[in-house]
This record gives sequence, C-alpha cells and structure tokens, in this order.
Amino acid sequence: MSTPPRLHSGHLPFQGRYTEEALSGRRSWIAEQTGVDLSALGGGPPPASAIEGNIENHVGYVQIPVGVAGPLRIDGEFAQGTFFVPLATTEGALVASASRGARAITESGGARVRVISDQMMRSPSFIFRSLVDSVAFASWVRNEESAIRAIAESQTRHGRLLSCEPTVLGDTVCLLMSYDTGDAYGANMVMRCNWAVCNYIVSAFPAQSGREILDHYVDSNMGAEKKISFFTYTTSMRGKRVVAEAKLDRSVTKSVLRTTPEDLFEAFVAGITPTAAAGSMGVNVNFSNVVAAIFAACGQDIATVPESAQGQLNFRLESDGLYFGCLMPNIVVGTVGGGTALPAQSAALDMMGCKGTGGAKKLAEIVCATCLALDLSTFSAICSDHFVRAHEKLGRNRPKTGPLGLPPQV
Amino acid sequence: MSTPPRLHSGHLPFQGRYTEEALSGRRSWIAEQTGVDLSALGGGPPPASAIEGNIENHVGYVQIPVGVAGPLRIDGEFAQGTFFVPLATTEGALVASASRGARAITESGGARVRVISDQMMRSPSFIFRSLVDSVAFASWVRNEESAIRAIAESQTRHGRLLSCEPTVLGDTVCLLMSYDTGDAYGANMVMRCNWAVCNYIVSAFPAQSGREILDHYVDSNMGAEKKISFFTYTTSMRGKRVVAEAKLDRSVTKSVLRTTPEDLFEAFVAGITPTAAAGSMGVNVNFSNVVAAIFAACGQDIATVPESAQGQLNFRLESDGLYFGCLMPNIVVGTVGGGTALPAQSAALDMMGCKGTGGAKKLAEIVCATCLALDLSTFSAICSDHFVRAHEKLGRNRPKTGPLGLPPQV
Amino acid sequence: MSTPPRLHSGHLPFQGRYTEEALSGRRSWIAEQTGVDLSALGGGPPPASAIEGNIENHVGYVQIPVGVAGPLRIDGEFAQGTFFVPLATTEGALVASASRGARAITESGGARVRVISDQMMRSPSFIFRSLVDSVAFASWVRNEESAIRAIAESQTRHGRLLSCEPTVLGDTVCLLMSYDTGDAYGANMVMRCNWAVCNYIVSAFPAQSGREILDHYVDSNMGAEKKISFFTYTTSMRGKRVVAEAKLDRSVTKSVLRTTPEDLFEAFVAGITPTAAAGSMGVNVNFSNVVAAIFAACGQDIATVPESAQGQLNFRLESDGLYFGCLMPNIVVGTVGGGTALPAQSAALDMMGCKGTGGAKKLAEIVCATCLALDLSTFSAICSDHFVRAHEKLGRNRPKTGPLGLPPQV
Amino acid sequence: MSTPPRLHSGHLPFQGRYTEEALSGRRSWIAEQTGVDLSALGGGPPPASAIEGNIENHVGYVQIPVGVAGPLRIDGEFAQGTFFVPLATTEGALVASASRGARAITESGGARVRVISDQMMRSPSFIFRSLVDSVAFASWVRNEESAIRAIAESQTRHGRLLSCEPTVLGDTVCLLMSYDTGDAYGANMVMRCNWAVCNYIVSAFPAQSGREILDHYVDSNMGAEKKISFFTYTTSMRGKRVVAEAKLDRSVTKSVLRTTPEDLFEAFVAGITPTAAAGSMGVNVNFSNVVAAIFAACGQDIATVPESAQGQLNFRLESDGLYFGCLMPNIVVGTVGGGTALPAQSAALDMMGCKGTGGAKKLAEIVCATCLALDLSTFSAICSDHFVRAHEKLGRNRPKTGPLGLPPQV
Repeated sequence: MSTPPRLHSGHLPFQGRYTEEALSGRRSWIAEQTGVDLSALGGGPPPASAIEGNIENHVGYVQIPVGVAGPLRIDGEFAQGTFFVPLATTEGALVASASRGARAITESGGARVRVISDQMMRSPSFIFRSLVDSVAFASWVRNEESAIRAIAESQTRHGRLLSCEPTVLGDTVCLLMSYDTGDAYGANMVMRCNWAVCNYIVSAFPAQSGREILDHYVDSNMGAEKKISFFTYTTSMRGKRVVAEAKLDRSVTKSVLRTTPEDLFEAFVAGITPTAAAGSMGVNVNFSNVVAAIFAACGQDIATVPESAQGQLNFRLESDGLYFGCLMPNIVVGTVGGGTALPAQSAALDMMGCKGTGGAKKLAEIVCATCLALDLSTFSAICSDHFVRAHEKLGRNRPKTGPLGLPPQV
Repeated sequence: MSTPPRLHSGHLPFQGRYTEEALSGRRSWIAEQTGVDLSALGGGPPPASAIEGNIENHVGYVQIPVGVAGPLRIDGEFAQGTFFVPLATTEGALVASASRGARAITESGGARVRVISDQMMRSPSFIFRSLVDSVAFASWVRNEESAIRAIAESQTRHGRLLSCEPTVLGDTVCLLMSYDTGDAYGANMVMRCNWAVCNYIVSAFPAQSGREILDHYVDSNMGAEKKISFFTYTTSMRGKRVVAEAKLDRSVTKSVLRTTPEDLFEAFVAGITPTAAAGSMGVNVNFSNVVAAIFAACGQDIATVPESAQGQLNFRLESDGLYFGCLMPNIVVGTVGGGTALPAQSAALDMMGCKGTGGAKKLAEIVCATCLALDLSTFSAICSDHFVRAHEKLGRNRPKTGPLGLPPQV
Repeated sequence: MSTPPRLHSGHLPFQGRYTEEALSGRRSWIAEQTGVDLSALGGGPPPASAIEGNIENHVGYVQIPVGVAGPLRIDGEFAQGTFFVPLATTEGALVASASRGARAITESGGARVRVISDQMMRSPSFIFRSLVDSVAFASWVRNEESAIRAIAESQTRHGRLLSCEPTVLGDTVCLLMSYDTGDAYGANMVMRCNWAVCNYIVSAFPAQSGREILDHYVDSNMGAEKKISFFTYTTSMRGKRVVAEAKLDRSVTKSVLRTTPEDLFEAFVAGITPTAAAGSMGVNVNFSNVVAAIFAACGQDIATVPESAQGQLNFRLESDGLYFGCLMPNIVVGTVGGGTALPAQSAALDMMGCKGTGGAKKLAEIVCATCLALDLSTFSAICSDHFVRAHEKLGRNRPKTGPLGLPPQV
Repeated sequence: MSTPPRLHSGHLPFQGRYTEEALSGRRSWIAEQTGVDLSALGGGPPPASAIEGNIENHVGYVQIPVGVAGPLRIDGEFAQGTFFVPLATTEGALVASASRGARAITESGGARVRVISDQMMRSPSFIFRSLVDSVAFASWVRNEESAIRAIAESQTRHGRLLSCEPTVLGDTVCLLMSYDTGDAYGANMVMRCNWAVCNYIVSAFPAQSGREILDHYVDSNMGAEKKISFFTYTTSMRGKRVVAEAKLDRSVTKSVLRTTPEDLFEAFVAGITPTAAAGSMGVNVNFSNVVAAIFAACGQDIATVPESAQGQLNFRLESDGLYFGCLMPNIVVGTVGGGTALPAQSAALDMMGCKGTGGAKKLAEIVCATCLALDLSTFSAICSDHFVRAHEKLGRNRPKTGPLGLPPQV
C-alpha cells in the first residue's frame, strides 16, 4: 500500500474540454493531488516484454479512456481519506454520474465501508461408486484437514487454506477449498494448491480406506468461478464481502442531486416490486458500470465482473435525511499479479494508494463506495425524472437535469 | 460489414516470443491474413478529441494487451468463414486455450451458429392508486400501441419498437418496451424513446381515463439492464439470443485436446450435480472470459458482461464423436456507437469484418462460437487432468497437458 | 359456480372450545351463514367407490381438521361478497391469524382482487442432429399452428390451445404449449393433447422437411410442473396470475392488528434486505400456509403448492393508512376433476360458492385474498413484537399479543 | 421409533377394486404385513378434543384418501427394511407410479439413503444506525455465544442450539440461529428460543456497548421458512439434507420399467437443457408429488412442501445398469407435535415405524427414497413414450405402457 491518503481540494480543471492540453492538464492536476506519477496513463504501449504471462498470440493493445470519479471521501478500515477513482469506460455520462454521487456523499460526510469477509474458494469434486463411500470420504477429509492444509500451503508462499469443507451431493463430494490469497486474486494459486491436494487425496484415500474414487475433477462447477451462482452470492465464498453506507443530508440532496430524501426513498421502494418480479439477484441499479470500469482501469480480471458486480442496496428514510447503503458479497480483486503490474494499470492503482501488497482490501472498499456513489446518482436521475403526483405536474415541462444530460443515462 | 471473410492458412508466427519484433510480426501477419490495417493496435493514444462522448474527467488511457484466438471456422448466418478473434485480457493462458478449442472445432469442420432473436428491452413503470386502475391502464396501453409506436420511433432514425407489453404487478404496471436497435447496443436510444413515450402516457392516460398515475419511473428494474435476472435470462429480452454447436471428431479430440469424446461427455454430466447444487444460472465453465475479452477489445460496454456471459452448454455423445453446443440468451453487442469508433477498437472489429452497419449480429455469432471454443478447451483440460478409474491410474505420473501449463487454468 | 355470495353477520360461536357440541355448533352456524350443507365435513369416510380415479392401493383415509378463516370481504371480478374460507391444517394459530387479517381487511372495506392471466403450460421437447434442423423446425411449427391446434383440441371438450411457441435451445426445441383448461387444473388434459400433437409432429415434420427428429419427450422440464422455476415465476405460464390489495385504515390497524401503518411499512422495508440476501424467489412471509390449507380442504393437488404459493408483497405508506397488495403469478387450481368431487372437499368448495363449472377463477381470487390477509396478520405480529427505538422501550415488558399467543407464530 | 422393520412378502390384494370390502381387505393386509393397527385409517373423525392446539374455528374434517406405495426396500442409517409408504392424494396414478418405481428399486436390491445434516434455522434481524454498529454487534454476538446458547436452551427441553452466526448485511445483522430440534419440526420451539434470545440481546448489547439497536424483528425473512430461497437450498439450513441412490439392474429396467438404462440416462441428459433454460431450482421431475402425499398422510405441515420438495437427480450409466440418485437439501419433517398425534396420521407414521421419538430422520430417509422411486417411474414413462430414432419407429403403434395408463401421467 504505497501512498498515504491526502485531502483533495479544488476542482478538476478543464471540465468538458477534449483537447490534448486539457487531457494532460487534468492528468497533471490529479497527479499533483494524489502525489502519484500518472505519466503511464498518457498513452503509448508498455514494452512487449512486460506482457509475458498476461497473454498469448499478442498482436497489440486496445486503449480504453480513463476518467476519474471523485473526489470521494471514504471512511473504511483500509481506505481512509479522499479518493479519485479511475474508471476505464467508453460509456458517456458514467464518470460524470459517479462523480455527482461522490460529491453528494462527500459533502454529507463520506461513505463508511468495511470488508466483512475475504476468501477465494474453488472446489474439486470426487465421484464414488455409492453414497456409502462418499459419506465415508467426507468423514475422512475432516480428519485429514491438517494434512490437507500442509499440502495446500506447500504450493504457495502467500496463500493460507482457511477451510476445506466436504459437501455430499450423493455419489459426488465437492470440497469447498477456501483460501486467504493475500493481495492476489488467487485463482491460479488456489488451482495449484487444489491440484496438489487432489493428487494426495486420490492416492491416500483409496489406500487408507480401501474405497475407490471413480473420478475426480480439479474444478467442479460448485465454485462457480466467474459465473452466477446463488451459493457464492449468499455465502460470499468468493472474494471480498463488503458493505458501504452514507447518510445523505437533506440540503445536499437538493443542491447536488436535485431531489429529496423522500423521493429517493420512494423510488427505492417502488423498485422492489419490479425487481422481485424479474427474478433478480440482489437489488441494485448499475453496480456493474463501476465494477467493470475500475476493473478495466486497474488490471483486474474483467471476466470476474459478473460475480463482483452483484449486490443489493438498502435505503432508510430518517427525519433529517436518507440512509443508504449496500452489500456486495463477492468483490474479486487483487493488487498483485494479473494485469496489475502493467504501467498504466499500476498507475491507476497507485492513484488510489492501492498498488501492491496491502492494497486488495483497500481496493475492494473503494469499489464498493464508488458503486454506492453511482447508484445514488442514478436513483436521483430517475427521481428528478418522475412525476410525483398528478396534481403537482400540470403544465410542467421536463426540467433539464444538469450535467448528466437528458434523458438521464440510468 | 466491411470485410469479406477469407480462408486463413499457415500459422501465427513468433509463437511464445515477447519482443517488439515478434509483436509487430504477428500483427503484420494477422493484418495480411485478414486484409485489415491493424496499425491502430500498435499502441499510442487516440487523439483526445476522439474521446468526446465516451468519457468525462478524462485523464488518460489504459492499454490492455490484445491477443488473437483462432483461426476459428464459423458457419453462421452472418459470420461465414474463418476468423481470428481479438481478445483483450491480462489473464495468461486464456488466448492459448481459446485457440486450442478453436483449432479442435475448425479441424472438425467448424462451428454452426445462429441468432435466434434480437431485441433490446427496457421497462418504465407506472404506479396507481389501485389495481383497478392498473388493470384499466394495461388495457388502455394495448389499445394505444400504434400511437406509442409512432412516438417511440419519432425519437430514432434506426430503432423500431417491436413490442410494448404491459405487465400488471398489482398497483404497478411495467411496460416491457422492446426495440430493434439495429447495429447499436441501443440502451440510450431506447431510453430516449421510452422517455418520450412516458411523457405521452402521463398526459394522455389521465386525460382519457379520468384515472390518476401516482408516480412513474422511466426505468424500473424489470428490464434488469447490466444485472442478473431470470426474466431476461429465460426470455432473452435483452440482446441477441444465439446458439452455436460443433461436432467434434474422435481423432481431433485425441490429437488437439488430448482426451476422448467419452471423457468430455462424462465430465459434462459430472458437472451437472455441482452446478445445480450451487444454484447456478445456466451451465457453463467460463464464457465470461471470452465475453469480457472480446468486449474490451471491440469497444463494447463491458458493464454488460454479466448479462452477456450467461449461457448453457449441451453435450451429446455420438458414435463417431461428440456433439457440443451452447445457448447464450442475452449477448449485448453493437458495432456502431459506444467505444466502437476508437481507433484500436475499430481495428479489432475490422479484423473480424464486423465494423459498422451490419456487423452486430455477426459479432454476436463470433462471440458465441468463441465461447464454445474456450469451454471445449477448458473441459478438455479438466478431463485430461482427472483419473478415470482407480485401476487405470496406478503409478501414473501426471502427464504434461501441453501449452496450457500445469495445472490447467480452468 | 353454485352459491351466490351473502353478507355475513354475527360471530362464529363457541370460540376456543374443543367439544363435539362446539364443533357441530360452529359447523351449523357456518352452514347457515353460507346456505350450504356442510354435513360432509362432519367426518366419516366417503363411499369407497367414490375414490376410483383418485388413488390406487387404497387403504383408508386421513382426516385433516378444517377451520374457517373469515369473514373476509372480497371485491373481485369473480369473487364478490363476504367469504368464510375453509383451511385444512394442523398448525395451531394459522386459522386465527388469517381470521385476524381478514377482519382487518374487511373492516377497512375489503380486498380487491383480479385474475390477470390464466393458462396451463406443459412443454414437449424435440431433439435434432443440428441447430440447422432445430431452427427449421421452429419455423415449420409456426406455420403449422392451426393444424396443431386442431389436433390438440380434438382431444378435449373443454380445453383450448392458447399458444404453441417453439423455443430453440440449440439442438433441442421446446414447444411451450399453453392451454385454457376451463375450471380444471388440466395437467392430464394438457398431457393428452400434447401427446396427440407429438404424434402428429414426429410423423409430419420428417415427412415434409426431410429432416430427422432424433428424440422427443412428451414432457420436458421446461414447463416445470410442480417445481420451482423462474421461467414460470416471471411469465405466469402455469395457472392463474392474480393480484390483490387492500387499503388499511389507521384505526383498524390499531384496534385489530395492535400496530400502526408506519410500523407495518417499516417492517416491510426492513425485510427487503434479508429477503434479497437469502436469494429468495419473491417477497412474502407465509403464503404457503394459506395455499396448502385451502388446497387440502378443497381437493386441489397439494403437490402444486410449491408453484402456487410463490408471490410478492407490496406495501405503500399513505397519509391515511397503508396500501398493501400482492402478486401471485402461478395459482394452480381447479373446481372440477381431481379431488373436488369428494364429499368433504366438495362441501368446502361449496362453502365459498366455488363448486364446479365457473369456480376456478373465483377460487384463485379467494386464495390470493386470503394470502394477503394472513401475511398482513403475520407482519403485524412481527411488528408488535419489535422494539422500535431503544428509548421507547425502557422497562417495557413484552405485552401479550392477544389470541395469537406469545411469541407469535410467524 | 415403535416398530421394527419386517420383510414383506406377497402382494397387496384386491388390486384395482374400489369396494368397501377391497378397501378393508387391503388395509388388513397392510396391517398384517406391518404389524400395526391401521383401524384409524378407516374413516371417522377423531374426538373433537384431540384437535385442540391444531386449529381454530374448527368446523369439521376433510378426508383425503390414503394409498400405499411399496414395498420399497431401504438401506438407510435409520430406515432399514422394506416399507409400505402411505400417500394421501387425490391424483390418480401417483401411488401406482411410485409403487412401480419402488418395485424396480426393490428388485434391484433397494435404495441406500443417508441423512447428511439436520438443523432448523430461523433468523431474527437487528437494525443499527450504522454499519460501524452492526460490525461491532457481530463481534459481540460471537463473544456471547455461550450466554445466548444458555438462554435459548432454557426455553426447550429437547432443542439444542447448534450455531448462532451473525451475518452482516449493512445496517442489518441477521442471526442465523440453527437448532437441533430432535424429532419435532421445531418451528415454534425455535421461535420461542429466538424470542428469548432477542429479549436478552436488545437489553444486553446496548447496555454493554453503548450502541443503539434501532429495531429488531424476531423473524427476518433470511430463514425463508416455507418459502423458496437459494440460501436454504444451497446450505441445507432448514430440515434434513438427505441423499438416496439405487443401482438399477438392466433386466429389471426391462421387466418393470419397460425401458433400458441407456434410454433412461439419455432422457436425464436431454432434460438438462430445458431445465437449465427454465431457470429451475434443482433438477427433478416430481418430488413434490411424493412429499405432499406423505406429508398429508403423516400429519406434517404441508405448508413446508415448497422447501421440502426441492432437490436434484443424478444419473450415471454403468456397464451393467444405471446408477441413479438424488439429493434433497431441506426435508422438514417431525414425528412428534404438529398433526402427528391425530389418530389416522399417527397410524400412517406407525405403518413405517416412524411414530414418535426417534422417527424423524427415519421418516426423512423414507421420503427421500420414495421420491427417488417416483421419479424413476416417471422418467421411465417418459422414455417408453419417446421415439428413439426415426428409422427405428416406422409403422410402430404406441404400445400400452401398462398400469400407468396412456398417456403416462408424467
């Protein structure tokens, strides 16, 4: 975790201008604010040699524009201070909307965030002739836990096996192997460890028990890596489970968001019915926009966006404003390995003080807080767009909703 | 649709080398094979002015490496020929694995693909004092369909309103507004059209019926944009519903995939139990890897990866090989608008002949076929890794599984 | 539909007494109120001959006690008036709680209910060598719709084929065959019709197209009969989609439910977060209690409780009270066939005027309104049980919550 | 657990006859086979006084016919021997079909069954001003576990608190309170214990921590009692998680089921695609039929059918026959309390030796094995109905499928 947080002041210069001068001016300003060298974001490819291990059949690069949302004040366990958040996207209005939400949160005192749990689970499966064998295997595994841990952890310097839980599905037993992977995403680390564990098991169990393992797979689908499953959604077995919240002042709601706590709350409640009717996983508006954009900017594996972007909002109307919070059960991030060492990606991480060791939980907190900011802004755009009561709206022309354009990019 | 497909011959040069010379050599080779100028993939930022409309608070660029998977032979309605598929990723082994699957498919005769349906749905909601009013509203909307269509289509040159279905949820009615958005993703187009429709409805319905609309929202969550919902998953109301298949020769299974049709089929069946036990949406291994990588390379909205990457595999063992296919219900792609006009992204689309008008369904077919290729390779990696029967494996050391490394990056 | 609704007056006698006299006295009183002979509820088995067609290996009977919930005032399209609802259950407090909810609704003016749609879908599947054939088959089926309808409807006097929609899943095509089954549940009718349609298709399609059907199944799992699927949940393709609502007076909330509109609303909102976190289908408390009890009392197929009991609540706080409503997408009921002709079951249907032809939609409306009543009461029990604010509750002993006992049977 | 299992011999007499003599003759025969007095199944209501605690507003009884499926040979941990299973239903063919499946299993050596886990979870929720408080509360609860256990267990003679896991959802913390409820369903026991725990917590936590609890609910929806949730589905936190399996002989498949292992397996695989496409929970055909019928016969709470009937099948083709098994994650049964003491219900439990203390896990094993039997028979009906290959079926008339009628009641 390289950079101490700073308080940011002033405003991003050259707003709304798309010239080289404006671009480099904004970059310099952010660099100054954050104390980080951002020249790697200026364009130009990394040296080809830096790519080894990240891709095969390498033919070039795609440049995705990066904008900064913020400043966003965060009071987390790991992320403390005011942050500019790099978002790589080509969807107009996204950065502006996230920034508006960030402003509302920051002016209301900031977002509180906490990482509740953190683990990376993948699951090998073992198939037996009969459930009699699979039940015996589950017992055996429980007794072998320390041996299994030793084997797993022999394959990694940084990872720790948190638990190895056998789940009997009939003739099949899935082992839920959960690891602390430190600051790495850890999918490959976990795979390597599980591989060694499987090799041990397929040798030791038959030898010790006299029972046969018909088949085994080093990865069953029970871990649901990069996929949608309610198991990982409800148990947070993959990635960081993070909660965030803010208390929105009534005056800020008006000045920044052009709406009221009551309208926001009403919009939240009104959304429950359609969300449930659609058979949705969780309740949110567009966490995916933030997750995808931060992941692309910061060298994360964007194939994990489907699981990482899940989550639910929670609004509560209070007498003096609006409580709004969110739960994101499976944020899969790393700050070492993967694409994090590439120059631009490294600079993007550095902009938030998340580069390298110690950065992963901090990054997860920032992701969650930024999702909260964007959803707040989007909800506000929806609210300022609705007609509250028929008798209130006679003759009213639609007001402009400001910098987010018309109609709002919900 | 700019480029006619060509037959590819020979092999990508400089395999496994990470030098500038190898990089540009491979790029030139692909350029020659595809007849497309790929210099925009060479690195270097686009002019700042080109970014307008794609991002705010622009401070720079992130470079994501692009590799090509293929050649992949596709027999689609729109994609016909042999393709190299650009994948932007930092996950090592992904491109190699997709290429291996592509080779197996191509050597077996190619993948057949079809777009089954294509629409972009978003859903405004209207809230009434009582279900008596909401039921009356649903009837009124059905009678107003032609008026609503005229208003919606007045907001767009290219879009067509396909249907406007009222769904009564109690006091709330969601209108499922489905559009043909041509070659654009179309989220903003649909929003603009729905906005105009809402303005009409909140004026006309009360006036004509004497009934009150308490509230309305231009976007309820019933459309589940960029989110996970079973409604869109089961009905394919967002994006392109695409199916792909291939028939894998026994000999190719051996030579390319180092496994057998029987082992692949057995692995598929063995995966059903863990997949169902996890409460998964669909049955696949890692479609998300391909979807995220093509989307990043081609200027798609990577925030739509969660819905686009859903899907299910289907294996069938035949006497002379293996049938394997997949269904992807919601591939959200566009070849105009969004980030598709940026230089590198445009070149990536061009590499497949998908740039511009006429390219969206072709791109969807290629995405689906490439997902099939990757999942085939990953399944094979899992298979060659398992111990089929205890009595077959005595004393066996794990064989190397070739270019994908050990253990396989499942 | 045998009996006109009546207004009920007075109170059920012998409350809380469990003697033969009290039992027959209450039965007589209900019989008098409803104008229906309820002697068949008195006990004693039906003649053995009456059982033919309902069961095999018949060895006797189980007696499930029946209580009446109500009076419940309903303003439906089919159910109009004030009803006593027979509930067969052995779960203490259920009838009392439903009755309390019914009283609150009735004193507030009654429940409005509507059947939004009504169909019974089952789905055969057809498997082809390639998706090229399956796509061709889908086109062929669309052209054959009138022939298919004629064949289907030749198998039934009462049923009508509403739609026959081919869904391409790759090499597999499921036909979504939706029927109007009148007042019957209709599962067997639909099966018989689909059987005939399958026989036609497997003969006609190959002959006309020269394409092969590899396999077909008269019932695939796409229809999800008696099971949980989001497809039927979100599209209401099985049974009756029904919505109900009531507007609860503030004073009634206090006098009958011992709580306030604000507390009820707050409890509803507070429940969203845990409900979503659990990955629930819909949002309700205990619809299943009512559905199971009415189904058992009225000769319905209790194996359809899983799909029939799904649904979601919707609360809205208004200045003068509480709006609360619900949506139940798949209520599977019939008033002819199945167990409806058995003496006690027939009397139970008759008690609500739902016996025989014309009764099914009326029964569905009553089921939905009674679910609303029970959930209202249960929510109230939860509310009167919570401590709203720490400073309000100092020194407070838990008050008794009346006839529902302590703690409430949520 | 009252009755030792016996081996059954001979056949149920008077097959297919619906006379009083046949009815009592079959009942006597089963009584003799099982050594249990079944006269309570003969009809006639229980004494009114027996109903107290089971229902309010009691007006009479509904008689549901009971048939016996079996004999079914079961090799469980608790259920060992050959069983006749009482099914209360009015759905013709259900008992016959389950019996056919039972015969196939029994002739193949019986079904192996095991209870993997057993707990009853309900979840109170606590709401805080901020996640800072909710995180502190979660820590506090973990430290208070022994105090909480003592309080919970002071409310019950038989129940034990297995775990009390705080789940932080933001400002809300749900406590997952899991109990061993012995042979009772235990919903009320758990509620009473949780009530006491809540009373302790709302007093002790604020006093000890100086932090405020804004609200609490003795039952949040996180426990999903009687509802559908993936949390309970994937974690088996409610009721008994049970697995069953059988190995079907090739010859029995032919003689009893009129199909082949290959056709059954193929039908299973063919069902995966439609099941997944429908967004189904689990993979089964009609577990709900068996669960509802046993629950009604045995005095279980039929409102728990939605959770209890969930589950998934698993087929594996072996050289000499078919392995088929199932997992049912949440079978909610009790053999004391509820309706289990009513005369007919008690006799039904007694028929299987499941009455009273020690019977609940045995009953769960029998439920699971009977579900396996019915689904096997239904799959066979589907299989014998399909046309395997076009060239094999020319000129073939549909064969009768025997006692299950035509078309099969799938």
